Amino acid sequence: MFRLLIFISFSCFFGVGAQTTVSDSVFIRHLYDTALVAGKSYVDLEYLCKQIGPRLSGSANAARSVEWGKTKMELYGFDKVWLMPVMVPKWERGSDEEGFVYSNEEVTRLHIAALGGSVGTNGILKAEVIEAKSIEHLKTLGNLVKGKIVFLNEAMDPARINTFSAYGGCYQIRAYGASEAAKLGAVAVLVRSLTLSLDYYPHTGSLQYEDGVHKIPAAAVSTRDAVLIKRLLNSKGKTEVSLSLSCIDHGMVPSYNVIGEITGSSKKSEIILIGGHLDSWDLGEGAHDDGAGVIHALEAVRLLLVNGYRPERTIRVVWFMNEENGNFGGKKYSKVARENKEQHYAAIESDRGGFAPRGFSIDGSVAQITGLQQFAEILAPYDLHEFEKGYGGVDIGPLRDGNVALIGFVVDSQRYFDHHHAQSDVFEAVNKRELELGAAACAALIYLIDRHGINGATKQP
Amino acid sequence: MFRLLIFISFSCFFGVGAQTTVSDSVFIRHLYDTALVAGKSYVDLEYLCKQIGPRLSGSANAARSVEWGKTKMELYGFDKVWLMPVMVPKWERGSDEEGFVYSNEEVTRLHIAALGGSVGTNGILKAEVIEAKSIEHLKTLGNLVKGKIVFLNEAMDPARINTFSAYGGCYQIRAYGASEAAKLGAVAVLVRSLTLSLDYYPHTGSLQYEDGVHKIPAAAVSTRDAVLIKRLLNSKGKTEVSLSLSCIDHGMVPSYNVIGEITGSSKKSEIILIGGHLDSWDLGEGAHDDGAGVIHALEAVRLLLVNGYRPERTIRVVWFMNEENGNFGGKKYSKVARENKEQHYAAIESDRGGFAPRGFSIDGSVAQITGLQQFAEILAPYDLHEFEKGYGGVDIGPLRDGNVALIGFVVDSQRYFDHHHAQSDVFEAVNKRELELGAAACAALIYLIDRHGINGATKQP
Repeated sequence: MFRLLIFISFSCFFGVGAQTTVSDSVFIRHLYDTALVAGKSYVDLEYLCKQIGPRLSGSANAARSVEWGKTKMELYGFDKVWLMPVMVPKWERGSDEEGFVYSNEEVTRLHIAALGGSVGTNGILKAEVIEAKSIEHLKTLGNLVKGKIVFLNEAMDPARINTFSAYGGCYQIRAYGASEAAKLGAVAVLVRSLTLSLDYYPHTGSLQYEDGVHKIPAAAVSTRDAVLIKRLLNSKGKTEVSLSLSCIDHGMVPSYNVIGEITGSSKKSEIILIGGHLDSWDLGEGAHDDGAGVIHALEAVRLLLVNGYRPERTIRVVWFMNEENGNFGGKKYSKVARENKEQHYAAIESDRGGFAPRGFSIDGSVAQITGLQQFAEILAPYDLHEFEKGYGGVDIGPLRDGNVALIGFVVDSQRYFDHHHAQSDVFEAVNKRELELGAAACAALIYLIDRHGINGATKQP
Repeated sequence: MFRLLIFISFSCFFGVGAQTTVSDSVFIRHLYDTALVAGKSYVDLEYLCKQIGPRLSGSANAARSVEWGKTKMELYGFDKVWLMPVMVPKWERGSDEEGFVYSNEEVTRLHIAALGGSVGTNGILKAEVIEAKSIEHLKTLGNLVKGKIVFLNEAMDPARINTFSAYGGCYQIRAYGASEAAKLGAVAVLVRSLTLSLDYYPHTGSLQYEDGVHKIPAAAVSTRDAVLIKRLLNSKGKTEVSLSLSCIDHGMVPSYNVIGEITGSSKKSEIILIGGHLDSWDLGEGAHDDGAGVIHALEAVRLLLVNGYRPERTIRVVWFMNEENGNFGGKKYSKVARENKEQHYAAIESDRGGFAPRGFSIDGSVAQITGLQQFAEILAPYDLHEFEKGYGGVDIGPLRDGNVALIGFVVDSQRYFDHHHAQSDVFEAVNKRELELGAAACAALIYLIDRHGINGATKQP
C-alpha cells in the first residue's frame, strides 16, 4: 500500500492545481517520498562541495558556483532563470597564516584563521597578550591595552538550549573586537572561536572595522588554544603571541545572485521566494553554511515540479551572493524588487544548516503567524513542531516592508556551530536523510502557502 | 542574571522536596544548566567506549563494565547499589570472518559480519547465490533454494520518516531468514545490512534459529556489497559466494544487571525506574546502542542528586545485561520484582541513541498518556515535543502488568541506523550536547513524575 503510493507519484504527474484531485496531506506525502526515495539534494550538495568547493565572494569558485546554479535551474525545468549582477567585496586570506604563543620559554603553535576582512600583519607581529572577557570588559582595561595583542576570550554559553542564542550572545567579540581594541592602542586581536566544541578548528567570520579607527589585524583562535592561552596567562611570567597574516583586500568586484522561477497562474504577481546564500567562507566547503540552504531551495522547487505542481503564485528560488561579508546580494535583490514594484508575498530562507528539520520561525504580522501555525497539524507527521514568531534570515531581511512574511527554516541547532565557518564544514558533516527531509519540508511549506495563503484568516488545510 | 542562576545551582543544594521553594520550571532549568555546563555524561560515555569498549554478553568487557557501573553509582552517591545475577548466552564471532563473491571470473571481497548466534561454516563454504526479496518471497522459491546461499536483499524503506519504522518493516530477514532458508535446503544466508546508509559497514544483530530446524550460518553484508551482488546476479553467468565464519557458542554464563537507587521518602515503595542496556554488539563500541542509554540513566539521577533533590518515590537506575541477544537481564529483573512484590510506578528506557531529544512515547493507560502529555508545556522550551502513545523498550517490557507506565525516551531517529550494530557505533559518533540534553530530559521527566504523578487526573505542573 505504502509502496504503491510511491510508485504512483513517480509514474505520473497528477496535475495538482485548479483541477486537484488529491488532498494536501497526500500531496505532501508525495513530496517527502520523492525527496527520500529519488531525491537529488545529496548528490547536488556533493557536487557543490567537492567539485566546486568553498565559495568566498569574488573568488573563482564563487563564479563557478554561479554558472553551475544557473545550469541546474535550467536543467530542472524552471520557467525562467537569470543572473542578477551585484558588486561584492573580494578579500583573500593569502598564503601566510601562522601564530605562536610564547611563555616561560615554551613556544606553541596556535590554530588560527584571519577573520574575514582583516588587514594583514605585514610580516611577523609579536606582542604581549592581554585577555578581555568581553567587549565591555575590554573597555574597562584602558591604558593596559596599549601596544598589546588583545585576546578576546568570551565563550559561547553552553547552557542556552538553542545554540544560535549562544552565538548571538557573544558574536560581538568577532564583529567589533578589533576596532574597540584599536581605540585603546592594541596592535592586533585574537578572538576565541565561536563554537561550543572544544577542538582545534579556528572559526573565521566577518569583522566590521569602524570608520575612522585604525585597522588592526584580527584572527580567530581554536577553543583548545584559547584554553591554553588562558592557562599561560594565569601562570607566572609574560605571555606573548606572534602573528603572521598576509590578507589582501581587492576591493569590490562583479558577481551575481542566481535566480530561477516558476511563473504562477492566477496570482502570478505574488512571489513566494525561497533562498539561501551561495557564498561561503574559504575554510571547509560551505556545506552546512550555506550549501545546504541553497540546495534546500533548489530541491524544494524541483520536488514541486516533478510532482506536477503548477502554482497559483510565482515561486522564485534565489541563491544570494555575499551573505557572509556584506550582504550585498540581499540588499541588491531587495533594491531591484522595489524598483520593479515586485510584490513579495512570502520569503523563506534556509541558513541554519542541513540538520534534522524542526519547523519554521516567522517575522510577520499576527495574521501571518497564525497562518503559519495553521500548517502545524498537517506537518506534524514529519517531525515539524516549531511554528513560532522569530527570525527570517539575513538575505531576505532587506525585503521587509510590512507586508511580506519573512520565514526562517528551523533545523536542529546542536551541531551547527561545530562546523560554522571552519575547516570541518564539509560535505561529510551533512547527513543524507536530514538534508532530504529539509528540502521536503521547504517544498511542503511553499505548497501550503501557495494553496492556502499565509494569512490566518483563510480556511485551514 | 542567567549566569548567576547557574552559579547558585552549583554553590548550594537548595533542597527541593517537601520544603520546596523553587518552581518546577526553575528546577528543570537547573537540571539542564548542570547537564550542559558541568555534565559528566560525555566523559563517562568516553570511558565506557574507549577504556572498556564493546560489551557483548558474557565477554570480559561486559564483566568490566558491570564493575565500572557499580563503582560509578557508588561514587555518585546513590543510596544503594547492587548487582543482580543473571545467566546470559556467551557467543563469540571468532577469528575468521571472510566472504568473497565470484562472478564472470571476477573475485571481490565482501564486507561481512556473522549475525549474533550464528553457527560457523566449519572451513570455507562456497555455493551459488539466490536472491530473496523478503521472507515471503523466499517461501515462494521452493526447490530453487536447495544447496544455495540465500541472499536476503530487502532494503529498509527510506520513505518512512521514523527510521525505527523502516527497521521494523524488514528486521525479519535478519531474525528469521536463516531458519526459513534452511527449511528449503539452503546452506547459508547473507543478509543485506539493516541500515539506510549506502556504505561498507556490515551491521550485525541477533538471529533466532527455530527449534528443530537445521542451523545454517548467517552473515550480514554491507549495503554497497548488496548492490554489487544484485548487479552480478542481474548479469549473465553464475554468481557464487564463499563464506568463512568461526563463530563459537559457549552456552550460558553468569553475568549481572547493575542497579542503583535513591530511596524515596513518603512513597518509597513506588519505584520510578530509568534504564538502558549495558551489553552491546562486539563491533564498534556500543556508543549509541546503548552506551548513550545507560549514561542517560546514570547522569539523569546524578543531576537530581547534585541539585539536592530528594524524591518522594524511589528512583532506580537499572543497567540491563543482554538486551541484544536474549533479553535475559530484562526478564530476570522483572521476575525478581514480582517475587519481591515490588511496585513499579513508571519505567523509562533510553535505547534509541544519544541524538537530539524529541520527547517520550508511552505504553500505558489513557490516564497515564494524559499524565505524560500534561508535562508537554513545561518541557517545550527544551525542544521536546513528542508525548504520544507508543513503545517503551525491550528491557522494561517484561515489567508490563497493567499498572506500570512504560516510557521510551525518543530522540531524533535519522542517524541511528547509520551506526546500529556496526563498527561505526563509536564514541566519536555521539555529539556532546545532544547526549547532555538527553540526560537532562530524562532527569526532568523523573522529577515531574515524582512530583506530580503520571496519572492524568492529577493537577498540572
